[in-house]
Amino acid sequence: MSTFLARVDITLKPTVNDPQGLTIRGALHSLGFKEVQSVRAGKYMEIRVEAATPEEAEARVTEMCRKLLANPVIEDYRFEIEEAK
Amino acid sequence: MSTFLARVDITLKPTVNDPQGLTIRGALHSLGFKEVQSVRAGKYMEIRVEAATPEEAEARVTEMCRKLLANPVIEDYRFEIEEAK
Repeated sequence: MSTFLARVDITLKPTVNDPQGLTIRGALHSLGFKEVQSVRAGKYMEIRVEAATPEEAEARVTEMCRKLLANPVIEDYRFEIEEAK
Repeated sequence: MSTFLARVDITLKPTVNDPQGLTIRGALHSLGFKEVQSVRAGKYMEIRVEAATPEEAEARVTEMCRKLLANPVIEDYRFEIEEAK
């Protein structure tokens, strides 16, 4: 068994309103970052899992995202897996 | 001017306690994902900025992270920049 590190990004789907992102954009504009067009806020998680192969780790992390980490009605998820040091 | 997309991950520094991550790990264990060793929770942001070059976009996003997005006392940040479609 090896240890793998999954870096999971969870975002609101593009059609879902994101008041937190709008607030951050407003704050960046007031600080002088006028070049900011849009901000979308989301969640990030680093998950360390034991698995025999990267493929097995990927399948299990996908299942975690579907069952607990993301709300499939309003959120999308995306992750990368690497062997942990 | 082009538009660039920065994908920013903000995490707690390794020495900072992360009760949210511990709670998520507990929930994953109760759902049968016993292979999960640790979970660290953080924030994710997608920022669209106008800039002349990728280097300029990178410099500006670094400044945004330092001034507003991350708390340098307890958080680390990391980002990737790509040209937006």
